[in-house]
Amino acid sequence: MVNVPVLRSITEANALLADALRERFSQQDVLVLNIIASPGAGKTALLERTIESLNGELRLSVIEGDPTTSLDSERILAAGVPVVQINTDGGCHLEARMIQVALGHLDVEGADVVIIENVGNLLCPTGWDLGEDAKVVVASLPEGDDKPLKYPMAFATAQAVVINKIDLEPYLPARASVLRENALRINPDLAVFEISALTGQGLDGWVDWIREKLTEKREAKNTTPH
Amino acid sequence: MVNVPVLRSITEANALLADALRERFSQQDVLVLNIIASPGAGKTALLERTIESLNGELRLSVIEGDPTTSLDSERILAAGVPVVQINTDGGCHLEARMIQVALGHLDVEGADVVIIENVGNLLCPTGWDLGEDAKVVVASLPEGDDKPLKYPMAFATAQAVVINKIDLEPYLPARASVLRENALRINPDLAVFEISALTGQGLDGWVDWIREKLTEKREAKNTTPH
Repeated sequence: MVNVPVLRSITEANALLADALRERFSQQDVLVLNIIASPGAGKTALLERTIESLNGELRLSVIEGDPTTSLDSERILAAGVPVVQINTDGGCHLEARMIQVALGHLDVEGADVVIIENVGNLLCPTGWDLGEDAKVVVASLPEGDDKPLKYPMAFATAQAVVINKIDLEPYLPARASVLRENALRINPDLAVFEISALTGQGLDGWVDWIREKLTEKREAKNTTPH
Repeated sequence: MVNVPVLRSITEANALLADALRERFSQQDVLVLNIIASPGAGKTALLERTIESLNGELRLSVIEGDPTTSLDSERILAAGVPVVQINTDGGCHLEARMIQVALGHLDVEGADVVIIENVGNLLCPTGWDLGEDAKVVVASLPEGDDKPLKYPMAFATAQAVVINKIDLEPYLPARASVLRENALRINPDLAVFEISALTGQGLDGWVDWIREKLTEKREAKNTTPH
């Protein structure tokens, strides 16, 4: 008798494909980050700054997810990095099958880091594994310091939170320290960075974290017996 | 032969129920607004200001949609208005069936305006009719002035856009005039208001629009032959 795999849901099918992608990324020795945030939190600006900091040192590639337009991928291309744009046609999250298609147009062989910018949405992307090593939430301080309590799912499943637009703190009722505290209340293991993608303030800690994650991944691979 | 209605999709079922809700709201002479925005755009702060301006003059009721917590409805209750909280348990939009259940706990008989604060999300709520008279998008200026181009669906289906947090304009690369222009490019019929829910600046135009919409609805009903 042949065992026919029965997929109970499209998210289960997604999880299987995501695992296959993770295996492929592991063989290619590439670190993959899945960036999740509300619209306008500054995901693309963070990418531009990250590229600026790491270009020449690490080879980056970007997959851009947007409901429509290629405005973001044009910005990444201008920053000098290979990029593929996925338009979800209004869909509120990326899925593993979209990443698989994108990889047909993006040579990640030889890349060090692939950054996936998910659709601007704090809810939908959370449940869709893309084969990434880590989810990163970008939380914009003007959105308020209570966001982790109101949208806990993204924070619960992430490894890092980048608190952006801290240059605006003097003009806001929200406090970066409270946002940090609320994020850690949802997930005590989070790495938290306070930055301004506009001024460049605080970028170093975030970029160091990427370096460390890449080193960790490669060291773990080399010490795992095959 | 009996015609059995066949619903082709859950959104079609939603549309039928939304029409029934709209009919009920019409009989009760109540104006219903469906507020859509990203997380942290200032929907609840706008509601607090709106209640402050209209309380005593119009009877307001509020339905709060959030993925979790009752933080927002506690703020509305403190503002002195009847409120029901819907938790979507992570779901990214409200649906007509949720409004129907909420109406079992909220006496809108005798109310003038019911404001529904949708889940913080610029994409998912767009396709789900709640029986409202108008969708209103709250666009926070710190999110950037390109949002209408990147998330056109919400702007295309709305009747009004409230540009919030204009007190931050001196400290931002984004411009309210560009955001207005981009919104009108997507939908030339939009009423656009530039406000700060923090300082109260610009609230009058928005509140006048609510008064006008209510008057229009009641006059249209009185001139329609039954």
